[in-house]
Amino acid sequence: MGNCSQGCKDYFSRQKNTNIRLTLPVVCFVWQIAMIILFGVFIRYDKESNAHWVETKAHDNITSDIENDFYFRYPSFQDVHVMIFVGFGFLMTFLKRYSFGAVGFNFLIASFGLQWALLMQGWFHSLDPQTGKIFIGVESLINADFCVAGCLIAYGAVLGKVSPVQLLVMTLFGVTLFAVEEYIILNLLHARDAGGSMVIHTFGGYYGLAISRVLYRPNLHQSKRMQGSVYHSDTFAMIGTLFLWMFWPSFNSAITDHGDGQHRAVINTYLCLASTVLTTVAISSLSQKTGKLDMVHIQNSTLAGGVALGTAAEFMISPYGALIVGFFCGIISTMGYIFISPFLEKTLKIQDTCGIHNLHAMPGVIGGIVGAITAAAASESVYGKQGLINTFDFTGDFKDRTVLTQGGYQAAGMCVSIVFGVVGGAIVGSILKLPIWGDPADENCFDDEVYWEVREPSVMFCSYPNRSESNFSVEHCES
Amino acid sequence: MGNCSQGCKDYFSRQKNTNIRLTLPVVCFVWQIAMIILFGVFIRYDKESNAHWVETKAHDNITSDIENDFYFRYPSFQDVHVMIFVGFGFLMTFLKRYSFGAVGFNFLIASFGLQWALLMQGWFHSLDPQTGKIFIGVESLINADFCVAGCLIAYGAVLGKVSPVQLLVMTLFGVTLFAVEEYIILNLLHARDAGGSMVIHTFGGYYGLAISRVLYRPNLHQSKRMQGSVYHSDTFAMIGTLFLWMFWPSFNSAITDHGDGQHRAVINTYLCLASTVLTTVAISSLSQKTGKLDMVHIQNSTLAGGVALGTAAEFMISPYGALIVGFFCGIISTMGYIFISPFLEKTLKIQDTCGIHNLHAMPGVIGGIVGAITAAAASESVYGKQGLINTFDFTGDFKDRTVLTQGGYQAAGMCVSIVFGVVGGAIVGSILKLPIWGDPADENCFDDEVYWEVREPSVMFCSYPNRSESNFSVEHCES
Amino acid sequence: MGNCSQGCKDYFSRQKNTNIRLTLPVVCFVWQIAMIILFGVFIRYDKESNAHWVETKAHDNITSDIENDFYFRYPSFQDVHVMIFVGFGFLMTFLKRYSFGAVGFNFLIASFGLQWALLMQGWFHSLDPQTGKIFIGVESLINADFCVAGCLIAYGAVLGKVSPVQLLVMTLFGVTLFAVEEYIILNLLHARDAGGSMVIHTFGGYYGLAISRVLYRPNLHQSKRMQGSVYHSDTFAMIGTLFLWMFWPSFNSAITDHGDGQHRAVINTYLCLASTVLTTVAISSLSQKTGKLDMVHIQNSTLAGGVALGTAAEFMISPYGALIVGFFCGIISTMGYIFISPFLEKTLKIQDTCGIHNLHAMPGVIGGIVGAITAAAASESVYGKQGLINTFDFTGDFKDRTVLTQGGYQAAGMCVSIVFGVVGGAIVGSILKLPIWGDPADENCFDDEVYWEVREPSVMFCSYPNRSESNFSVEHCES
Repeated sequence: MGNCSQGCKDYFSRQKNTNIRLTLPVVCFVWQIAMIILFGVFIRYDKESNAHWVETKAHDNITSDIENDFYFRYPSFQDVHVMIFVGFGFLMTFLKRYSFGAVGFNFLIASFGLQWALLMQGWFHSLDPQTGKIFIGVESLINADFCVAGCLIAYGAVLGKVSPVQLLVMTLFGVTLFAVEEYIILNLLHARDAGGSMVIHTFGGYYGLAISRVLYRPNLHQSKRMQGSVYHSDTFAMIGTLFLWMFWPSFNSAITDHGDGQHRAVINTYLCLASTVLTTVAISSLSQKTGKLDMVHIQNSTLAGGVALGTAAEFMISPYGALIVGFFCGIISTMGYIFISPFLEKTLKIQDTCGIHNLHAMPGVIGGIVGAITAAAASESVYGKQGLINTFDFTGDFKDRTVLTQGGYQAAGMCVSIVFGVVGGAIVGSILKLPIWGDPADENCFDDEVYWEVREPSVMFCSYPNRSESNFSVEHCES
Repeated sequence: MGNCSQGCKDYFSRQKNTNIRLTLPVVCFVWQIAMIILFGVFIRYDKESNAHWVETKAHDNITSDIENDFYFRYPSFQDVHVMIFVGFGFLMTFLKRYSFGAVGFNFLIASFGLQWALLMQGWFHSLDPQTGKIFIGVESLINADFCVAGCLIAYGAVLGKVSPVQLLVMTLFGVTLFAVEEYIILNLLHARDAGGSMVIHTFGGYYGLAISRVLYRPNLHQSKRMQGSVYHSDTFAMIGTLFLWMFWPSFNSAITDHGDGQHRAVINTYLCLASTVLTTVAISSLSQKTGKLDMVHIQNSTLAGGVALGTAAEFMISPYGALIVGFFCGIISTMGYIFISPFLEKTLKIQDTCGIHNLHAMPGVIGGIVGAITAAAASESVYGKQGLINTFDFTGDFKDRTVLTQGGYQAAGMCVSIVFGVVGGAIVGSILKLPIWGDPADENCFDDEVYWEVREPSVMFCSYPNRSESNFSVEHCES
Repeated sequence: MGNCSQGCKDYFSRQKNTNIRLTLPVVCFVWQIAMIILFGVFIRYDKESNAHWVETKAHDNITSDIENDFYFRYPSFQDVHVMIFVGFGFLMTFLKRYSFGAVGFNFLIASFGLQWALLMQGWFHSLDPQTGKIFIGVESLINADFCVAGCLIAYGAVLGKVSPVQLLVMTLFGVTLFAVEEYIILNLLHARDAGGSMVIHTFGGYYGLAISRVLYRPNLHQSKRMQGSVYHSDTFAMIGTLFLWMFWPSFNSAITDHGDGQHRAVINTYLCLASTVLTTVAISSLSQKTGKLDMVHIQNSTLAGGVALGTAAEFMISPYGALIVGFFCGIISTMGYIFISPFLEKTLKIQDTCGIHNLHAMPGVIGGIVGAITAAAASESVYGKQGLINTFDFTGDFKDRTVLTQGGYQAAGMCVSIVFGVVGGAIVGSILKLPIWGDPADENCFDDEVYWEVREPSVMFCSYPNRSESNFSVEHCES
């Protein structure tokens, strides 16, 4: 294997320099030190996580510790956390030889992103004008995880084609753009988007697609042997799918109103996702000659319903309304994999490794529209007077807003997220095109050996390049 | 591989038509549309998930949002949800080449089943006579997941031998039967069964076994090469085992009384399961010449304690009582795998792929008996006057029932669940025997290639059927 | 394969007798029966899990069931439970052929250990002097899981080199020692250690290392072919890594004070772990010629931050303080894998399979020091008067203790845990050296076939020992 291993390395480094021994450590160290300094200057515990809480309780007449926001949010937070790290990470392990990159780089950029998100979202949403500090609690952690989700979605479009340094740069800008568009949509337009159909999924989807467009690789077919899945990698990917699917009710309800808001968001999302599974299976079966199912569809399109209910989950969309949204999302998303993805690649030159257009971008837009319509159709008879105020937060500057106006602002928010995604992605893509980031050559895409010490190389791809034995990928090659 | 793939297909379709391109999509679409219509007519948010909750709170003098039932049940709900989709799904991935079917079909039928369960259970348990509506909240979602569990258990008996269409039919009838027997046991007989030893495990177990009996395949040995596990598939199955094992305390406590009821059910289940692991290991080791352990036992029998405490978990069975139940369940369940399963197959012609008789049916019956005895032995000194009333719900029509009578009704409930399982399974099995469902031929059982697009076929089984090289299963065959 | 299988067995049993058909079942049965008897004598439900809770509520003027400690602790408990069984279990599956042993033996010893821990911790911490009983609730379950964690850490050092009987013996003594050192540290010295940097990680780490030292195998290189990982086993191990990483905030906050204590511990741990990931990646990349990452580092060192914040997580270490701890832990732990582990093996003759010295022992010591410094630096201005009392529990006998004294006692606690680990481990190691436990021969270490029925043996290691074909590990060998 000594030979083989050497041969592989030579082969890999033929055209492009994927040596990241300088850039990756430098970026990690410098950025982490920057985080420490900025956290030292800006970030403090909020009053519910501060040791002075005992005084706050007395002052605010809070009778029990259980009314600390921690107990309203923590179970949802942990579910969201699992979605970010196991859900997104394992969903991308479907490629036959990119599991380390999928799970590992997902881990890396999420860990950086959540720190940067706490700062960016803090500056835009919760900077205390008197002290100049950002006070964080469990809801801030959820929001940071949400923000990171946008960047992980974008990672799906470029999976296997970029270096970890590029991913970190993409995350730095992605989080920054996210915080700004979120500020515009949620604070200025005062749109509601608890589960982030617009701010997370639409933005993240178009951000990733735009980057992928700019980084278009005309010769990507040279690494075709590494594309596609193998049996076990598809099973690993189902771990990701299922944890995303199961915990999506927590995702959509994590920052909704205490009480009925969280309760309703869970019910709606649960139902919507169940409906999506059935139509995904139906379309997937229809697409094959003998009705066989395709794992790509089951792994991805079953989740589209959760995306599409991100805005409306907390509204009184009613249980059958949630089922209807799921019904159409399963159809549209699966058809996306069958018809739209090939079109995007051939015509628009967008190479979308995980099909995020079908799983996030399109369903995100649907979610924005569903949210706008549901908001515009809200009425006092359905929500109750106070319920309407609570659900749409018609307080302060917005206390006179009508539901129809709200619907309009929801639609406007939708457009903002698309624009931020497309324009932001195009700009960031151009930055990532610089030849300094150590990205892999076209023939080495989707291969973990570029950035990871892999103990047993996949024999077939280096030892016997021209022999019929190369048909066999013998998995465990001893050294 | 072109050859091979074609050859495989011919081979598969020799005897039976497994083309489900018409039936599967039709069933999915029609049933999902039916769900939407029925949900539109019947299902509404309950008062704790309705935007009018703010009024309910004022009306009922509820001081804090944290008293919304959501916060009592949601963490348990999410754990149960994980058990249904990851637990049951991955537990069945142990077969070498049926992981897609295990996880994927589990996903499909659970997603359909939970919708149908909300309707069926709603009609039987919570139809509001005035409005004619079913009001759902988080407890309804848990109950729907529970109901689905019964059908997933039954799936274990027929794993690898049926088509997804048959599974959907099995689930439709399974959920229906479940709702009826549950109504009889919990409402008419007023038996207690929070974790479902009787209504879920005993019913589900016998339902699956009866179906498998009717669908008996005398020539199943023809697909013997696909039975059994490989190294990685056993590791995947352990994911299912562990998530079931870890979250079983949530399962048994999810719908018990607030406060001490949930608390006690968790402690009892936790202890019982720990005890089961030790005796399972002991018997497994005894069963082999050199004391080696068998993954089949570790994957399944370790869970028997959770099943057997489904009824009694909320009772004051006391910690050592829970350990005793677990002790015997580990022994009985493991011995079931060693002695009873071969007997069932040879003598009773019941082919039980996952051994649900040992994991669900028998421990379920034990659980029913343990529950009856524990109930009959309850006393005011142990429970307290009000504690006894709360635990056994001796209110309304049942306020004068004695614990001894309660024990009798528990035992009666046990019998009802067996009868429903056996008779229901026999009838549904006959329906599934019709030659229209696209089930696989005997020699193609336990093979994902029948219903899934598998990118790399398992070479050995088609290319070199008669050569010594066929000893090698080369896993990754490139196309 | 008949031949091969027989050959393998002969080969395995050449030097050592690994037949555990007598010892394993006997130990399991006898110990489990002992547990049942001891539980019968000592263990009872506490007042919050007792059916008399309704009376307790009335007596203590508790207005809502939600104030039952269950609702403060249960979500954290389930997360900790997942860490113990899936986290620790799958983290150790990285070896190419020891996944069954990793997950399965972890399952076995944790299941025994938690029962024994409930008794040992009960006797030392919560034995009611009047009744002579131990009253358990959800917090007891968490503590039992914590106690078990210490033994699972120790398992990491001897992974693949011991028999399950040895592991059970190691757990019996480990839990016993744990309960004593915990009593000394938490009760006598009154040190704070909510997440167990000292009592769990430092103790467990040194306990395992000392045992490994005593059991030193000079000829371990004979099983070198079984050491190291393969592609899929590394992916499985990432499941363990991620569940540990994600749920570590729950681990460190599970038994901290209600309200701000739990809230703050979560925030600190979340941040610390994020920071660790970046520096781990940086050092890992620096350590390879072309900057490639090493899965060993990513799987393990990313967790060091959680260990090192075990003591200080509940203190007002402030968000940037948490980041700084994580920053250095990532560096130190990764460097440990690169430089210290080889040194330990060569010079000190400590063979540490999982590198627990780098993941638990060293970061645990750091955590003890960080805790001592943070405690000594605490002030009334930062904590508030009552906050200081609550956080450090300056009540009863300790109400006059100053923070400086507290810092000293924290440091003393640190030393106690090291001494217990080293001395205890040396003694237990000597017991485990007796030739009666069925441990494997040097050339059969790290191989599941010794203690598990493995359906397809790894062909290369038995069929073709001296041929070049042995380079191929054909994974699925049909019998």
